[in-house]
Amino acid sequence: MDLKEQALSLHKEWNGKITTTPKCQVKSREDLALAYTPGVAEPCKVIAGDKEAAYTYTIKSNTVAVVSDGSAVLGLGNIGPEAAMPVMEGKAVLFKEFGGVNAFPICLDTQDTDEIVQTVINIAPAFGGINLEDISAPRCFEIEERLKNALNIPVFHDDQHGTAIVVLAGIMNGLKVVNKKKEDCHVVVNGAGSAGVAITKLLLRFGFQDVVMCDKSGILSKDSADLNWMQKDMMEVTNLTGKKGTLADALKGADIFVGVSAPNIVTPEMVASMNHDAILFAMANPVPEIMPDVAKKAGARVVGTGRSDFPNQVNNVVAFPGIFKGALEGRASQITEEMKLAASYAIAGLVADEDLNEDNILPEAFDPRVAEVVSQAIKDHIH
Amino acid sequence: MDLKEQALSLHKEWNGKITTTPKCQVKSREDLALAYTPGVAEPCKVIAGDKEAAYTYTIKSNTVAVVSDGSAVLGLGNIGPEAAMPVMEGKAVLFKEFGGVNAFPICLDTQDTDEIVQTVINIAPAFGGINLEDISAPRCFEIEERLKNALNIPVFHDDQHGTAIVVLAGIMNGLKVVNKKKEDCHVVVNGAGSAGVAITKLLLRFGFQDVVMCDKSGILSKDSADLNWMQKDMMEVTNLTGKKGTLADALKGADIFVGVSAPNIVTPEMVASMNHDAILFAMANPVPEIMPDVAKKAGARVVGTGRSDFPNQVNNVVAFPGIFKGALEGRASQITEEMKLAASYAIAGLVADEDLNEDNILPEAFDPRVAEVVSQAIKDHIH
Repeated sequence: MDLKEQALSLHKEWNGKITTTPKCQVKSREDLALAYTPGVAEPCKVIAGDKEAAYTYTIKSNTVAVVSDGSAVLGLGNIGPEAAMPVMEGKAVLFKEFGGVNAFPICLDTQDTDEIVQTVINIAPAFGGINLEDISAPRCFEIEERLKNALNIPVFHDDQHGTAIVVLAGIMNGLKVVNKKKEDCHVVVNGAGSAGVAITKLLLRFGFQDVVMCDKSGILSKDSADLNWMQKDMMEVTNLTGKKGTLADALKGADIFVGVSAPNIVTPEMVASMNHDAILFAMANPVPEIMPDVAKKAGARVVGTGRSDFPNQVNNVVAFPGIFKGALEGRASQITEEMKLAASYAIAGLVADEDLNEDNILPEAFDPRVAEVVSQAIKDHIH
Repeated sequence: MDLKEQALSLHKEWNGKITTTPKCQVKSREDLALAYTPGVAEPCKVIAGDKEAAYTYTIKSNTVAVVSDGSAVLGLGNIGPEAAMPVMEGKAVLFKEFGGVNAFPICLDTQDTDEIVQTVINIAPAFGGINLEDISAPRCFEIEERLKNALNIPVFHDDQHGTAIVVLAGIMNGLKVVNKKKEDCHVVVNGAGSAGVAITKLLLRFGFQDVVMCDKSGILSKDSADLNWMQKDMMEVTNLTGKKGTLADALKGADIFVGVSAPNIVTPEMVASMNHDAILFAMANPVPEIMPDVAKKAGARVVGTGRSDFPNQVNNVVAFPGIFKGALEGRASQITEEMKLAASYAIAGLVADEDLNEDNILPEAFDPRVAEVVSQAIKDHIH
């Protein structure tokens, strides 16, 4: 059986990748009287007097909703809420296994922005955090922003910020390997959807000064046609010299390429046209923008992908479990830009200087220290 | 420590009564590739082609949402969604322990009927059934009806139908004990909210011909003031002789009293005025409409309450876990009236004729046969 067949067969066997498990036993009338009526009235009354007590007496303190409308799932596109379930259940598994955080899939039978916002607000009382997932751009930006304003629990769109945090961690270490300063680097981000925008924002916040965004139409500038409102906003802080042209034009002399776009769209010639010691993150999945060996042969020094079978895997699992673990433990009301930056530093810091090399810029997904240091970084930045 | 203190202290220790537990392991890259990317794309693609496959590959097949807006919680009233959480978590525990069904609390931060309906529709894709809980009347009737029409998964308001099913089961056996025929009995139901209405409907469906509903204002008739729309509907099928007066008037000559109302409102004199061998279900909690010993002394033959420390406890836990277990296993698209009646027969049938007596008309909550026979009764009535 190949991996596809095996995955399908296992999913059938699992018939759902999570279960709900009682933490209390109900084997006797006494148990029932304590966990249910009449005893349960006591925590209810305390919470009725002080909503905050929900964190003491209910699952809220350690439970996240994994919310998707199924509009932008993996590389599969708009497949709807039912078809998105296996991914959201998988995410719930990872939250628990890597971060010790309970998570439950909420797959929405609507793709209307207002309805999504209202629905998530309505179901929020049971949850200590909202992880948005696989919602298409630019709706995802508005949905996240409105939910952050409406709720006093952390709201985090992982496709945006999880990806951005790990990419930045990789770039931090990549810069050490190639011995370049962020201030001197020209950066090209290809793909102007949720991940591309969030990566660009975090790179700018870190201190890169020249970032150019591209998409299918080539370099994005203020004059580009068909920009959505978020892309228009991004034109105020990227491509400040007003470059125009193709991706190939953008890459000439660039130090860093970050691709969240499409397979095989970067050629060896484009890599060869970049500055010396180029860093490439080619994260199209499963086939990257350029294969690592091809990129290296063409002159790239550090190459990361989304795949586990190549070095330098950019894997969100090193970010989101620790981020919510820290946010929940520290009762953060939101995940701030400062926290995201701190998470990147924490992840990058796990690769010791003596271990750092062009094929080892990021910690392993299974490194048990990861969730701990990320969680601590979040908690250190709660005011 | 008394029960209240102990319950509060245990709820703090539990800090949430359920957890989400992975059914698949993710200890290696291979595990991750099967449970998450890239393997997870396979079940996603199958479901995208056929939504029904969600029952094969996701938690939908065995997971229920326990939905409340916190508007009518236990005897506590309108305490809101956060304060309702301990009850809904308790319910989720009982679903799993008694029926093997996964359940997750959805406590809604809105009490607007339209918004509740839309929110539940929106989150339905992850669930195989919706258990409504502790929603005040008459909103609960409309919410349930609209959700049943909108969704193709079972929707069941337990405060209504779970209670009604167990009360009817008890009455079925009570009639055997007192050797009366349903056609000859005069029934009084006190309390005209969600439970009272549902009990009345199921009693009528079973075959009782004279049921009179009462509430705080006394006997309800077509001429009563301030009836809500559901109560008005009920006046078409109850109190057909147009009786008026107080609860005491209603009880004169009655064979059966069902109380879902308030403590201590039935006096020994009222019981003495009932027909011989009266059956009383005094289910106000924790203090019943009349204490069982007082009722018996006044002439009642069979007395049930909601409490576990008296005989004949009317406990929904003998109904809802088996009902959803059967509905999910049989893929019922709704819980029909026929199924509810069948569930009552199944529950009543568990008390063998030789064990049946005035203090033993209902099976124990912990009788492991209960969920099995109820579940089978549901499955036998799926067409």
